[in-house]
Amino acid sequence: MLADLIFTTPPMETIFSDETELRLMLAFESALVTAQAAAGAIPAEAAATITDVCRQTNWDTESIRQQTLLAGNPAIPFVSMLKERVHQKDVEAVRYVHQGATSQDVIDTVLMMQLKQGLAQCQTDLNQLNTQLTQLAQTHRDTPMMGRTLLQQALPITFGDKVKGWLDGLLRAAERVDQVVEKDIVIQLGGPVGNSVSLGDHAEAIRARMAELLGLGNTPHAWHTQRDRLANIAATLGILNGSLGKLGNDIILLMQTEVGEVREGAADGKGGSSSMPHKRNPVSSTFMVAIAHHTPALVASMLAAMIQPHERAAGAWHSEWPVMRDLIRLTAANLYHANELIRTLEVDTERMKQNSNVPD
Amino acid sequence: MLADLIFTTPPMETIFSDETELRLMLAFESALVTAQAAAGAIPAEAAATITDVCRQTNWDTESIRQQTLLAGNPAIPFVSMLKERVHQKDVEAVRYVHQGATSQDVIDTVLMMQLKQGLAQCQTDLNQLNTQLTQLAQTHRDTPMMGRTLLQQALPITFGDKVKGWLDGLLRAAERVDQVVEKDIVIQLGGPVGNSVSLGDHAEAIRARMAELLGLGNTPHAWHTQRDRLANIAATLGILNGSLGKLGNDIILLMQTEVGEVREGAADGKGGSSSMPHKRNPVSSTFMVAIAHHTPALVASMLAAMIQPHERAAGAWHSEWPVMRDLIRLTAANLYHANELIRTLEVDTERMKQNSNVPD
Amino acid sequence: MLADLIFTTPPMETIFSDETELRLMLAFESALVTAQAAAGAIPAEAAATITDVCRQTNWDTESIRQQTLLAGNPAIPFVSMLKERVHQKDVEAVRYVHQGATSQDVIDTVLMMQLKQGLAQCQTDLNQLNTQLTQLAQTHRDTPMMGRTLLQQALPITFGDKVKGWLDGLLRAAERVDQVVEKDIVIQLGGPVGNSVSLGDHAEAIRARMAELLGLGNTPHAWHTQRDRLANIAATLGILNGSLGKLGNDIILLMQTEVGEVREGAADGKGGSSSMPHKRNPVSSTFMVAIAHHTPALVASMLAAMIQPHERAAGAWHSEWPVMRDLIRLTAANLYHANELIRTLEVDTERMKQNSNVPD
Amino acid sequence: MLADLIFTTPPMETIFSDETELRLMLAFESALVTAQAAAGAIPAEAAATITDVCRQTNWDTESIRQQTLLAGNPAIPFVSMLKERVHQKDVEAVRYVHQGATSQDVIDTVLMMQLKQGLAQCQTDLNQLNTQLTQLAQTHRDTPMMGRTLLQQALPITFGDKVKGWLDGLLRAAERVDQVVEKDIVIQLGGPVGNSVSLGDHAEAIRARMAELLGLGNTPHAWHTQRDRLANIAATLGILNGSLGKLGNDIILLMQTEVGEVREGAADGKGGSSSMPHKRNPVSSTFMVAIAHHTPALVASMLAAMIQPHERAAGAWHSEWPVMRDLIRLTAANLYHANELIRTLEVDTERMKQNSNVPD
Repeated sequence: MLADLIFTTPPMETIFSDETELRLMLAFESALVTAQAAAGAIPAEAAATITDVCRQTNWDTESIRQQTLLAGNPAIPFVSMLKERVHQKDVEAVRYVHQGATSQDVIDTVLMMQLKQGLAQCQTDLNQLNTQLTQLAQTHRDTPMMGRTLLQQALPITFGDKVKGWLDGLLRAAERVDQVVEKDIVIQLGGPVGNSVSLGDHAEAIRARMAELLGLGNTPHAWHTQRDRLANIAATLGILNGSLGKLGNDIILLMQTEVGEVREGAADGKGGSSSMPHKRNPVSSTFMVAIAHHTPALVASMLAAMIQPHERAAGAWHSEWPVMRDLIRLTAANLYHANELIRTLEVDTERMKQNSNVPD
Repeated sequence: MLADLIFTTPPMETIFSDETELRLMLAFESALVTAQAAAGAIPAEAAATITDVCRQTNWDTESIRQQTLLAGNPAIPFVSMLKERVHQKDVEAVRYVHQGATSQDVIDTVLMMQLKQGLAQCQTDLNQLNTQLTQLAQTHRDTPMMGRTLLQQALPITFGDKVKGWLDGLLRAAERVDQVVEKDIVIQLGGPVGNSVSLGDHAEAIRARMAELLGLGNTPHAWHTQRDRLANIAATLGILNGSLGKLGNDIILLMQTEVGEVREGAADGKGGSSSMPHKRNPVSSTFMVAIAHHTPALVASMLAAMIQPHERAAGAWHSEWPVMRDLIRLTAANLYHANELIRTLEVDTERMKQNSNVPD
Repeated sequence: MLADLIFTTPPMETIFSDETELRLMLAFESALVTAQAAAGAIPAEAAATITDVCRQTNWDTESIRQQTLLAGNPAIPFVSMLKERVHQKDVEAVRYVHQGATSQDVIDTVLMMQLKQGLAQCQTDLNQLNTQLTQLAQTHRDTPMMGRTLLQQALPITFGDKVKGWLDGLLRAAERVDQVVEKDIVIQLGGPVGNSVSLGDHAEAIRARMAELLGLGNTPHAWHTQRDRLANIAATLGILNGSLGKLGNDIILLMQTEVGEVREGAADGKGGSSSMPHKRNPVSSTFMVAIAHHTPALVASMLAAMIQPHERAAGAWHSEWPVMRDLIRLTAANLYHANELIRTLEVDTERMKQNSNVPD
Repeated sequence: MLADLIFTTPPMETIFSDETELRLMLAFESALVTAQAAAGAIPAEAAATITDVCRQTNWDTESIRQQTLLAGNPAIPFVSMLKERVHQKDVEAVRYVHQGATSQDVIDTVLMMQLKQGLAQCQTDLNQLNTQLTQLAQTHRDTPMMGRTLLQQALPITFGDKVKGWLDGLLRAAERVDQVVEKDIVIQLGGPVGNSVSLGDHAEAIRARMAELLGLGNTPHAWHTQRDRLANIAATLGILNGSLGKLGNDIILLMQTEVGEVREGAADGKGGSSSMPHKRNPVSSTFMVAIAHHTPALVASMLAAMIQPHERAAGAWHSEWPVMRDLIRLTAANLYHANELIRTLEVDTERMKQNSNVPD
């Protein structure tokens, strides 16, 4: 879609590329055998061989994509492919590939690694935005403008008050994002039915070591069908997008011809119209509202997908994949637009003053 | 609707009754003048008079309901009514009624008080449920059954493992509920445009004292159009309902005739069929799934309502009212059903053992 | 909730009262035996007795409400109660009560009767609204105003153009409502597993006659777990509310102090502010937007509830009940507000002209 | 994402590729000048020149993608690019490029052309599915199995009854899809503020001719901010996916180890497990449920986006783009999986018979 860049950013495209996904799957299998070898659960030589293979490049991702349609998920053809390559090096080592783990362990852990990277980008961008807003609020702490309730002029406020309102919600959003990064980004490792029996006596040590290697939080329980952490990440992003949507919408309202109190900065070609070249349209703020219109439904999708039967879901789990990807991409894009918006925002303090004198 | 009791509980009906709502509005106005008098912002005599009137009973709630259609919200006719009664006692005191506050201050604060009560009930019921589940997991820590992935028998687990899975999600849900109670249940007081100017020099002291009187958290900023706290409460409830829905759905699947590993307890008349009296149907678990099917959409409604323009929204704010009420009612009902379900659950360990022997 | 009347109307409250629901259940059972007797499937005397009992009043709806929590749905205690009363008159007739039918037959058919009544009210109100809008468009066909894109003044239109836009969507909405009334309001009668075997050889004749007696469309198949018709009704209402929300939102934007091109009519007390008595706020249009913010999520709930297992759902079916009720209530309320809005709308053609001259 | 093919199909990827989108934009501009020349509104030579340029290949889609971030939508850089190329051929003709049209005319019309193609594929696949189901119902019209209500065995039905249930909903879905194709797939042409004034006296003739050239329905009104048709298409797809989800979920339930009445056909590698090679997992049916879990939220997004201000929306319009694309892609994928599922379905009539004898 030619308009794709409204809804994503280059870093997110990298994080969710087939290449990254494959690389993270390899990192999972590599960490697994490393941790198992460290715990004495598998031979160190086998682990070394497998780790070596996991460093290889040029995997056939297209084949994995195609086989997913038969296998039900991409981990199955991926593991087969990995085993083949290990087999070429050391027949004995094959049995230790993916041993004790299950498809969902790989896929959930890879998603968590992607989310961690995506959230790190969001944290950076959100902090930058909040820094910008703090400065803007300071600059305009005494700039008078009309407060508006139910879109009627009410009583005077300052533009700084309005900015502090945006900041207030976004600072809480930043706290919530920090918290989910700390608490909800965890490894998945439980084996076929989640009870870790397949991982043997050293299951806890293996999981702890893997989590460390992969930079994820640890958890004593598999969460194959307990999806509250993902739902919480989704909701946290949903709330952040809501606060960004409020900001964007306020800008659009303030940019109205009849109000004219702010303008999006005039980068070359920004905000033009194909039919009316004299117009200056909201662009970044429009994108922010567009994204904030879509994210609530994605959160609902994640919440609805929490009803996952028994030890692994047939459908609800799979439904999460495009939704979580879209949510983090949309959030990153929203933050990008917000930073652009504030960075280039033009404030017409004169017009704010004039509008305050309109008899009410 | 004759089926209403599936979707609510008597305590929630009390909390969200017109009588409670009115009583809490009076508590707000009473706390406001008490705090203002304490701060020296209004005469103590006027505060005493107003507080006295706020203790009166027999208010005409039906009239408030009707006038809401003209006024746009119930606080406007309520304040008029209060002023009339104060006027009858002391003409001078009338000017101090609701002084410096705005409709949204009353309505948001009352909602927060209702949510606090509703959440307290949910905390109690969730803790009770988790206690029950802890006991159940302990009882069945060694009860073998089949683990099932994609609804296929996979490898053995214990029933204790399954219960610990439910408990795992619900313990995190309880933590999240505790956290929103602590952080997100706050007073709303900002005056017409949210900047507290209308409350005078003592605004901060007044807000702090009021929050204390009403048992709410304090916040330095009005949040008339920063709705992330409400959205976070909604999302927290949505996630809890998702975990309950997963539990209920597992029970329904285990109760299937062909599986038969658990049964809902046979209270008199429970689980019968109008056409097939021999059947034993899931009831509490059915209600749990029914509720968990509905709550994701309500969370989406709250997230979508976050785009609130300027200093007060025309529509998005109002849309929150039935949604938050329904969310807390549904959550309380879900917890009620869950406690009933676990309290009376019959576990057929023999059938679990038999099913484990089915050749796969 | 003191604000309830924003979200419903008196006719809807009547249609969805416990009394109406019970009366319609009795109508179902009465029509069933009448049709069965006409087909020779049961004795005419038994049918007459049962029909007589169905005309009795003073049923204990509170008891049905309470027993629903044990039985799983209100039809089970209702049928028991009906059988008891028939038993008092004629022991032999008892076996013919509800014979061949199942709980879901009663409950779905009653819902369809309620929806038919609710939709009839909506049709009336929507036609009235469209008549009003047709007149308004005619009146202002040549009233110049600025067209606005991305909330920027663009090029001139007439106010008639804008009204015709609203009308355009609402005329299609009216067509869609007419169509669902014609095609999707059907009887449910299939017996315990939906195959009509329990109704005997005359099942088709009985269903046809019952549909006629109850004023519903007929269908050869039971639709216990094929819920597309309900989903289609829900979606049709969702779309209508979207079009009403667009209208309401345009009014709010046109009422902005800085635009001031229309005003909601000043009924006594309408649109006042508790803290700023000089303001004129949008009221009806605010309610319209509030409702339109909530309905999309309710439609999503109905769509998500379509995954109903086998021959009757455990949960998804039950989740529909409050959602469909809320959807039709909200729609009726939205149409009420829309008619009020247009009926009393004040158009400031002078201001429209002035705003058109603002240099762009 | 390596699992992408679960959620889309090759034909949909073609329809929504940048190349197709660009080609359809060119088709729009070409049809516009052709129709304008035919109506005598612009010189035939200019039209011929522009049409020629529109046949050129090798457009720089990447540049359009990038410039969209500044321009707000892809039509603006596209039209600039087209004008440049026309300018190289005939300076005089440039003024006739896109004359009287607006960005939203191009973008909405292109979306409608994409939807038409996508829906045509869905119609073909849905008809094929219904043909398969008709045959399956016929084959198993007398195959006895247990009917199940609330997931409890209830009374016997035939497998043909169950298939006819699926078919019943899907035949209505097919009718609804046919109807939206006929009524809701229309051209967008209204000019900057939707009143067609920019198109001159021949606006109606131009629109009619263009609609004919592009294979779209005609409409007398622009629908820039009246989005009910798109919402109706979305809802129709949502309902279809719901019916498919019900079918998929029934298969998953029937495939349970303890039920075992059907199996997905064993294509090479289909339904395997990375950790448990002996298992046969549901695959196509799992994908169907996964998709049906996600689509309700997307429909809600489209309904929520109906509140579009004045003559063009700032945000709500843009939010539709990824949502409509995802909806049609998911629907096509769901139908693909459904056809695969039914084509290879194995029915274990013996097991159905055995299960019917289980004492209830």
